[in-house]
Amino acid sequence: MTSVYSPGSPILLPHGARIFNRLVDFLRKQYVQYGFQEVITPTIYKKALWATSGHLENYADDMYTVTSTSASRADDAEYGLKPMNCPGHCLIFASQGRSYRDLPIRYADFSPLHRNEISGALSGLTRVRRFHQDDGHIFCRPSQIREEISKTLDFVRLTYGILGLGPYRLVLSTRPEQYIGSIDDWAQAEEALKRALTESGNDYTINEGDGAFYGPKIDIILKDSDGKEHQTATIQLDFQLPKRFGLKYTAPAPEFERRGETTTDPELLAEYGPVQPVLIHRAVLGSAERLMALLIEHYNGKWPFWLNPRQAIVITVNSTEPVVRWARHTRDVLLGLSPAPASATPASPTGLAVDFDDSDRTVGLKVREATSKGYGVIVTVGPDDLLNNTVCINAAALAGPNESAEQLKKLRRINMTPEEAR
Amino acid sequence: MTSVYSPGSPILLPHGARIFNRLVDFLRKQYVQYGFQEVITPTIYKKALWATSGHLENYADDMYTVTSTSASRADDAEYGLKPMNCPGHCLIFASQGRSYRDLPIRYADFSPLHRNEISGALSGLTRVRRFHQDDGHIFCRPSQIREEISKTLDFVRLTYGILGLGPYRLVLSTRPEQYIGSIDDWAQAEEALKRALTESGNDYTINEGDGAFYGPKIDIILKDSDGKEHQTATIQLDFQLPKRFGLKYTAPAPEFERRGETTTDPELLAEYGPVQPVLIHRAVLGSAERLMALLIEHYNGKWPFWLNPRQAIVITVNSTEPVVRWARHTRDVLLGLSPAPASATPASPTGLAVDFDDSDRTVGLKVREATSKGYGVIVTVGPDDLLNNTVCINAAALAGPNESAEQLKKLRRINMTPEEAR
Ligand SMILES: [Zn+2]
Ligand SMILES: [Zn+2]
Repeated sequence: MTSVYSPGSPILLPHGARIFNRLVDFLRKQYVQYGFQEVITPTIYKKALWATSGHLENYADDMYTVTSTSASRADDAEYGLKPMNCPGHCLIFASQGRSYRDLPIRYADFSPLHRNEISGALSGLTRVRRFHQDDGHIFCRPSQIREEISKTLDFVRLTYGILGLGPYRLVLSTRPEQYIGSIDDWAQAEEALKRALTESGNDYTINEGDGAFYGPKIDIILKDSDGKEHQTATIQLDFQLPKRFGLKYTAPAPEFERRGETTTDPELLAEYGPVQPVLIHRAVLGSAERLMALLIEHYNGKWPFWLNPRQAIVITVNSTEPVVRWARHTRDVLLGLSPAPASATPASPTGLAVDFDDSDRTVGLKVREATSKGYGVIVTVGPDDLLNNTVCINAAALAGPNESAEQLKKLRRINMTPEEAR
Repeated sequence: MTSVYSPGSPILLPHGARIFNRLVDFLRKQYVQYGFQEVITPTIYKKALWATSGHLENYADDMYTVTSTSASRADDAEYGLKPMNCPGHCLIFASQGRSYRDLPIRYADFSPLHRNEISGALSGLTRVRRFHQDDGHIFCRPSQIREEISKTLDFVRLTYGILGLGPYRLVLSTRPEQYIGSIDDWAQAEEALKRALTESGNDYTINEGDGAFYGPKIDIILKDSDGKEHQTATIQLDFQLPKRFGLKYTAPAPEFERRGETTTDPELLAEYGPVQPVLIHRAVLGSAERLMALLIEHYNGKWPFWLNPRQAIVITVNSTEPVVRWARHTRDVLLGLSPAPASATPASPTGLAVDFDDSDRTVGLKVREATSKGYGVIVTVGPDDLLNNTVCINAAALAGPNESAEQLKKLRRINMTPEEAR
């Protein structure tokens, strides 16, 4: 929902928050594989930071300023509400000495970001002012660019495959007329991107001269079921921010290191010097809110089980006290709640999202409603179940219908990772 | 770390973020038990909202104002950067019709919050301007107050028990001279709090007249190892915010409902009418950042395994290629990474935090360093292990020393929930 008090800042209700948290959880698991470390960074930074990063110069239209509400606390400089995480990650990189052995360093961040879109352009989850990116920044050696791009393209393919999104196409944007850095740097970077793209096995097209002034980029353009195209993931090389923040690491034979080359000359290798790392900005989902809007349209109510905010519902056949009690017990079994008093042990829930309907309506009506709402598993509980210690499970997610407590256990064991839930 | 660009906004580096995420994960699991639904709410709201909530009147000194940085986008009202989540949760409650059958409704929120502390007071993780609360708001019927307070006290006891914090004492603050609402409401609410406190089995003291003007409250005062007291958790009844936001639900016999009473008179029960819900603000950890500071001091490097940002480290005995390769493999087994190519299947990591040290130093030095850093499990890998397909595990967390691959599997299986990890 959106409130008139916060235009462009979507409010995620419990079901939206479930989907959001599942996506974040999925990405966190992949971060172990892809070597990202999560950090949690400030929301507001002094304007001086945004001057250093160049945002005040180039991005002020899209930014918000933060000041003390009360004059009595106006002892501080003005702040900028962050539209991007990169400057914060540069501060972390710069906070200690770095050696070539430490690289690549990859930071991930799920912070909320704010960009001041004009109010006429705002719309639901797609054109917003506040959103969360699955943001990541890779600080690497020039010689590591190609491999990092390859891995990121891999990550994109994995994620979009799991979500069932696609096809998508890749677009490489190259050096524009206005640019910083040397022609050699650009040629080397574009070459690395092209090689990574070719190796990824995807076709790609080139937008000559359409790169950002600070580096070339790869955009992932997703085609939805209506054939409409959406730019979602992005991979951007950046020569500028590391320079503006004075980032460096030490490496042997720094002249070679800077060109992404190596030498075997022991004399050259004995000399250590500072080298500027390459910064890669990358987001796999892009805006999580916008991706959720695409998924809502894409699945059209038929969510894969692991992402379904309505995984299971327990429905009573009638409203008698024993049936309701047995139904509650069934729900607790599915949720993985212990029958012990709450204060004795911490809960280790299954992670299943289980709703409950003991409303005083016919079971047929309740099941139809649950079906049309897209529940993955519908469990009905009636007097017979009480006698036989069973429940009736109607689950597309399970193989065939059945009526045993064993089946409930199986359902509980369904692991929430996409690979097992498919 | 803290940057000069963001005083009072701590930056959580990877280890800090691990601890933070573990705490959030722990709470989310308990939320299933305690019936909280997580929501994700905006960071900035128009000033009109803060006027409705009373914050502009009573809390402006501690607030930040947000405006467009560029005059060209200044088409909007001014915003306030949120210091609390309550107004947002009231908007969600008010967004649809609510019946007495829906209550209690409990919303949880881990949003970052900003409060404009004077810069002289700022310090590390304890006196900050930006922090995360494990914030929750319970909307309930007057008759449900006592049970909700009891459950919250339960939740506090469970959490502090798991964290090994305490003892703590409970303080009930009652009606001050300046108050809103009726004396009857106050008497009834204070009575409910007292009964819940008594039932909780904890001693408590009363601070007569020290409640907020909008309702009585219970503070949890934690004593640290030096005997110093810290106010952490809080439970606050609120009669005002539901009134300011015009919150209501429908219930039979509304006159009785309002007093938290019931009737059996069928004529009265047939009449449905609107009733104002009671709002309970509660935080179990309070500020997550401040609690982390307390935990850091409390554990003094000896983290319980489930919270330890340094759960395991794999150390090479020498730097030969086969040893380093076997050590990498060992680390991947501990992390739960599949040996398959990354793009084929999503990762289902164990969740273990595993570091790696293949630096060119003696194994004795590396093990001593790892020990002093507080690693829970130290795994060394040498040439013998290669021959015998083993590793050497030095783990306080495991029963006795041992050298088998089976033991690695056991380690992998260590579930990260506190009850199993203790
Ligand atoms: Zn960036
Ligand atoms: Zn509150």
